[in-house]
Amino acid sequence: MKKIFDEDVIYKFEPDMEPVSQIEPGELVEFETRDCFSGQIKDEEKTMEEIDMSKSNPATGPLKVKGAEPGDFLKVDILDITLPDWGVTAIAPGEGVLGDKIDTAETVIPEIRGDVCYFDGVKISLNPMVGIIGVAPEEETFSSWSQGRHGGNLDTVDICKGSSVYLPVKQDGGLLALGDCHGSMGDGEVCVTGLEISSDVLTRVDIVDGPGIDWPVVSKEDKLAVMCSSGTVDEAIEKSVSSAVEILSENRDLEYEKAYMISSLSVDFRISQVVNPKVTVRASIPKEILDAESIFD
Amino acid sequence: MKKIFDEDVIYKFEPDMEPVSQIEPGELVEFETRDCFSGQIKDEEKTMEEIDMSKSNPATGPLKVKGAEPGDFLKVDILDITLPDWGVTAIAPGEGVLGDKIDTAETVIPEIRGDVCYFDGVKISLNPMVGIIGVAPEEETFSSWSQGRHGGNLDTVDICKGSSVYLPVKQDGGLLALGDCHGSMGDGEVCVTGLEISSDVLTRVDIVDGPGIDWPVVSKEDKLAVMCSSGTVDEAIEKSVSSAVEILSENRDLEYEKAYMISSLSVDFRISQVVNPKVTVRASIPKEILDAESIFD
Repeated sequence: MKKIFDEDVIYKFEPDMEPVSQIEPGELVEFETRDCFSGQIKDEEKTMEEIDMSKSNPATGPLKVKGAEPGDFLKVDILDITLPDWGVTAIAPGEGVLGDKIDTAETVIPEIRGDVCYFDGVKISLNPMVGIIGVAPEEETFSSWSQGRHGGNLDTVDICKGSSVYLPVKQDGGLLALGDCHGSMGDGEVCVTGLEISSDVLTRVDIVDGPGIDWPVVSKEDKLAVMCSSGTVDEAIEKSVSSAVEILSENRDLEYEKAYMISSLSVDFRISQVVNPKVTVRASIPKEILDAESIFD
Repeated sequence: MKKIFDEDVIYKFEPDMEPVSQIEPGELVEFETRDCFSGQIKDEEKTMEEIDMSKSNPATGPLKVKGAEPGDFLKVDILDITLPDWGVTAIAPGEGVLGDKIDTAETVIPEIRGDVCYFDGVKISLNPMVGIIGVAPEEETFSSWSQGRHGGNLDTVDICKGSSVYLPVKQDGGLLALGDCHGSMGDGEVCVTGLEISSDVLTRVDIVDGPGIDWPVVSKEDKLAVMCSSGTVDEAIEKSVSSAVEILSENRDLEYEKAYMISSLSVDFRISQVVNPKVTVRASIPKEILDAESIFD
């Protein structure tokens, strides 16, 4: 099995990134990932304001998938996300939805035990997930904090063990990188951090044909979620509704208006995150309303 | 059992509404509700543009609950939501998230069979819910299309059979009205309608002390959702994050900053609806992180 270690990280997704490793389609790959602060915060005395933020949000990679070409999708099966025995949550003035009400930076280091963590005496269930996952973009360079059609800092709770992430390939080989795992996070990630952890993420990476949309998609049990990012929540909602209507129109051979109405009846438009440079909203489409034979593999 | 028939409807929530019926706290009450078009659309030939929209979004009531006073909460247990054998979904130019892309008004009348409906050959699972539920407001008069601290057109999928809705009482007797039921709706209600139905809604209505917040709350199995409405999604998110932080601070005796971080780790901020005069976002708090003894009854 291929393993990529956390010495090999990127802080931006660039069209012309150099791969640090390569695989044949369908191989298992383990990504060793750093936490979002590159391990610079290990105790509650240290805050976000005292570290080198140029080393925040590292993504391990990039990995070249032989044969992947623009127009393909990389299919990344998330097979496992290991948990350490602690994580870090931090706030700072100006950060997150209520940043204006925060006067001083603070850090908490919750202990992880089994499938829960203990935060100041409050027991919180874990939902381990991958925050950053993306490929080389088409033209623009994106900070690893940001998001786009290439993926990036999607911070979507559905990107968890048992899910498959589909990323639209823009450059030969795809050039996959991932990191910024969370032990737990709620929809919104409202204070700007989740329970930030280092982790080993086991994946299987393959090449597939995708549906005619140009955004990352995550497939999970009974739902398919299209993850659209934009500058405002309203814009991200509009993009995600358009994407859902496109998928339904094509997949069920429906006219635009009918697909729009079905989206209103059956698709959940959910907030992924609202605190990074862009915001991410996902259209969560029940698989029961899709023709399973004709969407992805 | 008390029953309020659908001749008694309101189209606005007013501070000085006259009750049409009254009960002792804890009584069962059935509300006969009209669909959101007051039954004016019964076939696919008729559109939203051809009906009297002043008769849209009727709410059955108001019901006086003896002894309810400002500072109390009405607790409305939703015990049943009956389903008819058809519903109506409609779009019109300018309505909903993609209204700019719609040229002509259209109506679909899906057939309801058991727990699914059939929309143009697409089978959709039902999630019956109450769209409008509210009490007399403090000072302002609200159209039944709108939302506020009194409740109103919350269009929140969690307001379903088995849930309890808590509404902050502003006027003596509370003055409860509800209607606008949906056989199915996704988070967002993006085209402006769900599967609109007439229904009999069986409730038990009681008076309780509430937590120190001033928004409607819905309690469902393992989650408590605070429903905040405002002019933009961003504003509604900020209000809902503030509400979650207030509840957590008070309920778990946490400092503001810690409650903010826990909200980021564990609370799901979800879109209820984005198409009515205001938008509604709910803070969905896992009950496991709350001290159950000290929140509501």
